[in-house]
Amino acid sequence: MPMPFMFEKPLGMRDSLPLLYERKKNLRLAVSGEFEAWGYQFIETPALEYYETIGEASSIQNQQMFKLLDQQGDTVVLRPDMTAPIARVAASKLLKQQVPVRLAYSANVYRAQQKEGGRAAEFEQIGIETIGDGTISADSEIISLLISSLKKAGFTKFQISIGHIGFIQQLMLDILGREDRVSQLSNYLIERNYVGYRDHINSLALANIDKQRLIDILDLKGTENILEKAGALLEHNRGAEKLNELAQLMQQLKEYGAEQYVSLDLTLMNTISYYSGIVFEVYAEGVNFPVGNGGRYNSLLKKFGRDTPATGFALRVDRLIEAMGTLKDQAEIECVIFTPERKQDALKLVNERRAGGSRIAMQDLNGIGDLDSFTKNYSEVHYFIGAPGKDETP
Amino acid sequence: MPMPFMFEKPLGMRDSLPLLYERKKNLRLAVSGEFEAWGYQFIETPALEYYETIGEASSIQNQQMFKLLDQQGDTVVLRPDMTAPIARVAASKLLKQQVPVRLAYSANVYRAQQKEGGRAAEFEQIGIETIGDGTISADSEIISLLISSLKKAGFTKFQISIGHIGFIQQLMLDILGREDRVSQLSNYLIERNYVGYRDHINSLALANIDKQRLIDILDLKGTENILEKAGALLEHNRGAEKLNELAQLMQQLKEYGAEQYVSLDLTLMNTISYYSGIVFEVYAEGVNFPVGNGGRYNSLLKKFGRDTPATGFALRVDRLIEAMGTLKDQAEIECVIFTPERKQDALKLVNERRAGGSRIAMQDLNGIGDLDSFTKNYSEVHYFIGAPGKDETP
Repeated sequence: MPMPFMFEKPLGMRDSLPLLYERKKNLRLAVSGEFEAWGYQFIETPALEYYETIGEASSIQNQQMFKLLDQQGDTVVLRPDMTAPIARVAASKLLKQQVPVRLAYSANVYRAQQKEGGRAAEFEQIGIETIGDGTISADSEIISLLISSLKKAGFTKFQISIGHIGFIQQLMLDILGREDRVSQLSNYLIERNYVGYRDHINSLALANIDKQRLIDILDLKGTENILEKAGALLEHNRGAEKLNELAQLMQQLKEYGAEQYVSLDLTLMNTISYYSGIVFEVYAEGVNFPVGNGGRYNSLLKKFGRDTPATGFALRVDRLIEAMGTLKDQAEIECVIFTPERKQDALKLVNERRAGGSRIAMQDLNGIGDLDSFTKNYSEVHYFIGAPGKDETP
Repeated sequence: MPMPFMFEKPLGMRDSLPLLYERKKNLRLAVSGEFEAWGYQFIETPALEYYETIGEASSIQNQQMFKLLDQQGDTVVLRPDMTAPIARVAASKLLKQQVPVRLAYSANVYRAQQKEGGRAAEFEQIGIETIGDGTISADSEIISLLISSLKKAGFTKFQISIGHIGFIQQLMLDILGREDRVSQLSNYLIERNYVGYRDHINSLALANIDKQRLIDILDLKGTENILEKAGALLEHNRGAEKLNELAQLMQQLKEYGAEQYVSLDLTLMNTISYYSGIVFEVYAEGVNFPVGNGGRYNSLLKKFGRDTPATGFALRVDRLIEAMGTLKDQAEIECVIFTPERKQDALKLVNERRAGGSRIAMQDLNGIGDLDSFTKNYSEVHYFIGAPGKDETP
């Protein structure tokens, strides 16, 4: 007997059995087909990267990275995200030929988990990056592509919240005066801890009018009508150009017919430190965490020696699968069971069916463990058994 | 300026740029489509596995494995092959429902490289495993599926060499008397060092007739006619049942119409220690290393508590791509370049083209770096620029 340990996997590591695999495959096909239709080209980068190159650029916390020493003694990491590796490739190769570039990926990323709790340590992201284009056209394109991809994959109930890191940081800085105070207060928004946010503001030595301005930020959610309210919170109009970017974006999203899927949420901030401008998150019905997120990261490429703007998004395949609901429990695969003297007849049927697009297995009767439990796994079973000339399909 | 280090990747790690990616994708689609048509179901396993579970079972040398300590202090490895993880999944879950099971995978595996020399440390394998079926029907099926998959992927010039680990080990053991001597001599065959093989035999204290028997093994390559010659080398007929298995296999492969792609090579041995019976390797024109290999591993499942036979094969995607020859250098992607006031016209064209299956990017003129170098990357470029109503497609 084996030890139970034999079947165990490291924390947060999972198998995808056939039905889940097929669902993921179909999702991947639908989404990647749409990416390609919009002129995005897929690339692949290695699972292992130098810590100094990608680990530091990726803005994932250190303790969340799987690190190891390679045979040459350098620290390498399992890629914690795909944006930094794609920036590396674009900066070193592609941007020389072409600005902007439209790239796509479908890859697993790795985040070490500290404790049991159902969080995946390896999960698949499928996403795109537009590198070298600073126009609002690029932002509206990728959000429209996100919507279009989800629709192709069969989703109808999802919502995209759009914010602007530049706006909220500017506003907070004007009121709080110092970067460290901004970052302290931001953490409450990142965690969506609005009670903590209010308490923290009340503890600050600020004029009441400034406290109220910070608290009013929490109301900046809704249609483009909130942009005016947001503008009223600004001092000397610093940050108005950010609101203007959002107004243009919402206008362009209307041109794409996307308005029913988007709304503004100027409280939106997240842990990924390289985001600099328009950012967004996608929520799907039935899933508590975002199924995707993205935004502008205009300073990341500088780390790779190219000072060029960029924007992109990533979808989480596992969460999208969760949003799809229950898996059906039977694959449509037929089976032909044969004895060796009837193999030719079996082959003939199988070749016809496969040519017609069916999925059909061929199985020697002598290789079967228990016939009843074996056949239960197939949608239809054909028998070629015993003396030639007689087909027995019970 | 960035340090050149910025763009570097760990030894043996590679990027796949768009054209290579598409080639790999098309290959994967063709091969996996054929696997599915034959009733194989894809599964996915994690990149990280416990060393004690998978590392030890996988028969890849220790210094070739990427090892790390996880947050819980256990040693984990980047999977060095897919056969052991699939055996784990089958033993823990699938074999309870169904024997045999037909499984498939398409996944990267990891082998640490000691030095520069162009060997990949991460490479993709696409393969299948039939677990729980000890019949020759299973062996002939997987070799036929291998052939059929390669044909679907567009290959015509490839050859499969078939051997039998059980036969050659039995024969050597009869002559040499001890396992350690067998394994010493086997290494020459594994390395295909036939000169070394002969020299080693001549250095042994053996009767001349036995030396000749060992040297005659080198001639056991060709059609099934060699099986008789092989039988003549046996003592007391031990090992004859192995030759009989090969005779049956060759007969069944004829039924599949596979004879032009297969030949026997009874010297075939390889480093993977879990192979136990019929084994094979695939060579494609233009590539020096096997593009695929496989065979029976009837004792691996025992390590996972299920004493059941199994057979399977894996194709190396990178080597198959190499066998395809030069990449063409232009993707068929169109582009529409627009200025914002013409965006509606641009969108109309783009939507039509995408609906018709074209790949077409939309690009705001204001986001383009250098127009000439940008447009060079597209097969066709349409312009919607300036006052509405005028299309300019130069």
